[in-house]
Amino acid sequence: MAIDSGLKLQDIGEQGLLKRLQRFCPADVIGDDGAVLEIVGNGAGRLVVTTDVLVDGVHFSVGLENPVVTTSPHAAGWRSAAANLSDLAAMGATAESITIGLSVPSEIPVQWIEEIYQGIADCLNPWQVSIVGGDVVRSRQLSLAITAIGSVNSAKVIRRNGAKLGDRIVMTGIHGRSRVGLELLLGHDLPLSDRAAWIKAHQYPQPRLDLVSQLPNPSPAGMDSSDGLADAVIQICRASGVGAVLEESSILNHPEIKELIMIVGLQQALNWVLYGGEDFELILCMPLDQANEFCKITKSIPIGTITNTGNVLLKDDMGEMRSLSLNQGFQHFA
Amino acid sequence: MAIDSGLKLQDIGEQGLLKRLQRFCPADVIGDDGAVLEIVGNGAGRLVVTTDVLVDGVHFSVGLENPVVTTSPHAAGWRSAAANLSDLAAMGATAESITIGLSVPSEIPVQWIEEIYQGIADCLNPWQVSIVGGDVVRSRQLSLAITAIGSVNSAKVIRRNGAKLGDRIVMTGIHGRSRVGLELLLGHDLPLSDRAAWIKAHQYPQPRLDLVSQLPNPSPAGMDSSDGLADAVIQICRASGVGAVLEESSILNHPEIKELIMIVGLQQALNWVLYGGEDFELILCMPLDQANEFCKITKSIPIGTITNTGNVLLKDDMGEMRSLSLNQGFQHFA
Repeated sequence: MAIDSGLKLQDIGEQGLLKRLQRFCPADVIGDDGAVLEIVGNGAGRLVVTTDVLVDGVHFSVGLENPVVTTSPHAAGWRSAAANLSDLAAMGATAESITIGLSVPSEIPVQWIEEIYQGIADCLNPWQVSIVGGDVVRSRQLSLAITAIGSVNSAKVIRRNGAKLGDRIVMTGIHGRSRVGLELLLGHDLPLSDRAAWIKAHQYPQPRLDLVSQLPNPSPAGMDSSDGLADAVIQICRASGVGAVLEESSILNHPEIKELIMIVGLQQALNWVLYGGEDFELILCMPLDQANEFCKITKSIPIGTITNTGNVLLKDDMGEMRSLSLNQGFQHFA
Repeated sequence: MAIDSGLKLQDIGEQGLLKRLQRFCPADVIGDDGAVLEIVGNGAGRLVVTTDVLVDGVHFSVGLENPVVTTSPHAAGWRSAAANLSDLAAMGATAESITIGLSVPSEIPVQWIEEIYQGIADCLNPWQVSIVGGDVVRSRQLSLAITAIGSVNSAKVIRRNGAKLGDRIVMTGIHGRSRVGLELLLGHDLPLSDRAAWIKAHQYPQPRLDLVSQLPNPSPAGMDSSDGLADAVIQICRASGVGAVLEESSILNHPEIKELIMIVGLQQALNWVLYGGEDFELILCMPLDQANEFCKITKSIPIGTITNTGNVLLKDDMGEMRSLSLNQGFQHFA
């Protein structure tokens, strides 16, 4: 088949492609942030494996593809590691080790590559995660393909498809910070009081592995918010066959977000909070009592309730509802 | 640091870079085809993890980077999977699952991506290996970053550093076939009697997972010959602190290779056999008795002996010796 004929990737987008590729995978490993593998002879222990590829000019910008630099090589390494560790946290797993497939242009300074590795190592270090292998190849475009391996007790796996009617929806931190940090880096002149904090949220996001030991028993349903808060809630609801009502006031109830609203207005702030992505928090669904306890211990924030409506609604302060869709989310092949 | 200053990757090459990056990895996972990880609570069971990245225009050519097509999308997928499965075989491990990090240009036909996946699946299928996860991202250059996960009993791990004085060196199949197939695909007019077989060796190499259950006990030293026969012997000798004498007549003793010598001459044939790469056979070192038995069962070929000289020598039919170096090998950043 010729390159210039037929359906193009750009015609169906990333989601469309992933759907087509699912037929190559066993049914029981599809649909979560990582695959849960049985380890022969290891009782309830399960291996969790996840792969994320981050590409210069798409997921970060060190200045090779685009003159606007939004991440140093060190931050590019950190973010790539954080994205993968976040996928393990989203499965309720602890992280064990990673491999790195690094594609680099020949003309890249060696020091940049070492800074990328240092950024990865600095992100891994608090979690005692080792770099156990990898490959370095020549490519026109810088990219990092990281595979993270973790472990989880089979009874403690967090899955997207377990949300139940009446569950409280909890977010483990505020959203929109990474996106606002990116806007600042792109030159958007927002007179925020602590610009450095927003920028740090974009360049050095924290995977929420700290929460894995705090998860309630039985384990909640959920995933991480790497593709945005709205996306996470919608994905969980789709997988679980339920709906949700999110409370706008709860999602926005934080001094940083209130300052943002003062500067850019409610609609713009809400758009970034719901669809910004890459905050790498966890979105978890659990019964009310568990949610109250979990939020008290972890400073997480209850933001809504699982319903049986089949759609995801946002309720504003006046009680008005509107439906949220994936369309405003981050689409890689848009 | 600016992109245009300092040492470049092209100045130090892949080997130089990998040496610099080793400081980021635990010492005990460096130096073999895969990393051996202890699984908590699983006795002698060990996980083996390996990552290889294959890039269009470097490791295969589907026609996007270079007008000369040497692999269909299906064959590109197969080869990428085979390279990773071969790394598991090189560790003495059985293969369990893989993840795929696929980077694709937006304008690629969706059918090509499906053909890549089908090629991967077809390579995995005989070994009951599942695709358990992955990521698809947009990139200017097509590449596949595959991570393969396997398992091995800790007593059966094949390592590069275990070759001992007097060991026989065994190759599990003939070499140079992939390189000759590539020459044919590049338009080199070689009047070989079975062109299709040489081309198939390049496009559809077979990972030697079939040999894992046949390995002697205790396990041999060794690795795969993905970067060439000479490279494998040199790497094993370096890691083991030994030398080797290879017998030219044994390396070339096969009807296909003899036909090749008739056509291109001894020196060209020898060069392709020693340095061609990507035949994905195993190069194993074991005591003489074991070697005789192993070669009988598996149709492997004894090609030389481990010495204490510290260098790798090739002995020709006249008994003349010459030293082999890595320099003629496949250098990715040359």
